[in-house]
Amino acid sequence: MLSDAFSLGRIVNDGLIFKQNFSIRSYEVGADRTASIETLMNHLQETALNHVKTAGLMGDGFGATTEMSRRNLIWVVTKMQVLVEHYPTWGDVVEVDTWVAASGKNGMRRDWHVRDCQTGQTIMRASSVWVMMNKNTRRLSKIPEEVRAEIEPYFLERSAIIDEDSRKLPKLNDDTADYIRKGLTPRWGDLDVNQHVNNVKYIGWILESAPISILENHELASMTLEYRRECGRDSVLQSLTAVSTDSGETMVDSRGIECKHLLRLECGAEIVRGRTEWRPKHAELGEARSTPVENA
Amino acid sequence: MLSDAFSLGRIVNDGLIFKQNFSIRSYEVGADRTASIETLMNHLQETALNHVKTAGLMGDGFGATTEMSRRNLIWVVTKMQVLVEHYPTWGDVVEVDTWVAASGKNGMRRDWHVRDCQTGQTIMRASSVWVMMNKNTRRLSKIPEEVRAEIEPYFLERSAIIDEDSRKLPKLNDDTADYIRKGLTPRWGDLDVNQHVNNVKYIGWILESAPISILENHELASMTLEYRRECGRDSVLQSLTAVSTDSGETMVDSRGIECKHLLRLECGAEIVRGRTEWRPKHAELGEARSTPVENA
Repeated sequence: MLSDAFSLGRIVNDGLIFKQNFSIRSYEVGADRTASIETLMNHLQETALNHVKTAGLMGDGFGATTEMSRRNLIWVVTKMQVLVEHYPTWGDVVEVDTWVAASGKNGMRRDWHVRDCQTGQTIMRASSVWVMMNKNTRRLSKIPEEVRAEIEPYFLERSAIIDEDSRKLPKLNDDTADYIRKGLTPRWGDLDVNQHVNNVKYIGWILESAPISILENHELASMTLEYRRECGRDSVLQSLTAVSTDSGETMVDSRGIECKHLLRLECGAEIVRGRTEWRPKHAELGEARSTPVENA
Repeated sequence: MLSDAFSLGRIVNDGLIFKQNFSIRSYEVGADRTASIETLMNHLQETALNHVKTAGLMGDGFGATTEMSRRNLIWVVTKMQVLVEHYPTWGDVVEVDTWVAASGKNGMRRDWHVRDCQTGQTIMRASSVWVMMNKNTRRLSKIPEEVRAEIEPYFLERSAIIDEDSRKLPKLNDDTADYIRKGLTPRWGDLDVNQHVNNVKYIGWILESAPISILENHELASMTLEYRRECGRDSVLQSLTAVSTDSGETMVDSRGIECKHLLRLECGAEIVRGRTEWRPKHAELGEARSTPVENA
């Protein structure tokens, strides 16, 4: 069926790259008419799942293979790195390519390349690392041989689409954070099929503690997230942000801004550590330092 | 272009009905694997806008015609009625039909019929009433003759797809509400291009005060919303819900449940009044009273 063919994407390049187009919808854009980072991340999730599905590997889980489902194993993301070159607007069609590769002995890397369908211009690149967890014990697991046999034929030998950001992410606390937002709780609609909060939702919470002046005048240029622990439907979270400009001052101005983030439970347990970089809106990549703010 | 043709939909029936398909995406389904009501409502919004766009009527606003944009007029929704027969799941393709008609002297009705693309089965019917507001003064406006000339050729003479629910919606207060949720504030991502909260977001807030036992064990069967006042980015809202079962008892059981809702500002000003009806999950329409809860 034509509509299915378009909507579910297709496998290309000897079966190793999955490709899917998305039209940016009116409800996926924000106050500045461009797609939100959550929208772009949702498209990444959707292509990852459709890749597994289209390859015929899907068990009864959400992205788990047959052999994984048999062993109650699920994928969990431990690291996500994202570079956004520009944000698409309502009606734009974006083309997402995704593929997987080995990551160490017990991990899988998944990369994405998002382009403007009309111009071919890069919109976003992303790289992530996934490991296996037992759904019942919630403990991490090695990759069983039978699972490796399922997925290894799909590994594409290619270096990561983004150089790994190996700078240590600090653990923020009440003293080192500039902004703290408390009492964040999942809405009913934030829960996924495992009654857990989907990792894309965390991004909204992380940005909840960023000052509105940054969100208004800047756009997210890059993001590195380390997922430490899952959070459930009864969790109450705190979002911490520390802001620094290129000059080291903690002021919001027209230059590039770097933020550190921590999402933690009220008891202190860490959920996600993160780093975000921001450039003035409408500045092109690499010009962040010289372009004035247009959208004040 | 093929992808655009699919993603933007098409006009049929002598130009009076706009039709668009949507594939339900992984991030549009909730804990029970079915699409959320917000997802379905988002699809309605998207088709309404694409209808205006495809008809060549779009000015520089979000759904406003050229003559409306010239006069700083925008559409605002005053009433929305929705009946959901069943909820689609991830991968289902739904087909949305939408059309407009006159509503009184200064309003426009917009109806939607959503069907399963494979089976033709009705998923949802919805009917709404829209009036014009001046973007600067925020006061309601009559429909100017020039605007009427633009839109009237698109009016389809057909009775509303849902009989109007003309039962009065009560104004809940602290005494008549069973559940009150305070301190709701828009997230940055909730704002639309007018820096106002999109009317679909209100639904999430309304459901915030519904008890979790209803959300878990029941599904929304129908909803009537009356939009009274807009809310901006600095608004702090309270969500009130009163619950009654068919028997008049305020207990959550396996029978149908009716809720009344109010979304108000802290100062007491009303934003939305609403009524929702719920049926046990997996019950078919009309069997709500005899089917036990399966998803407890």
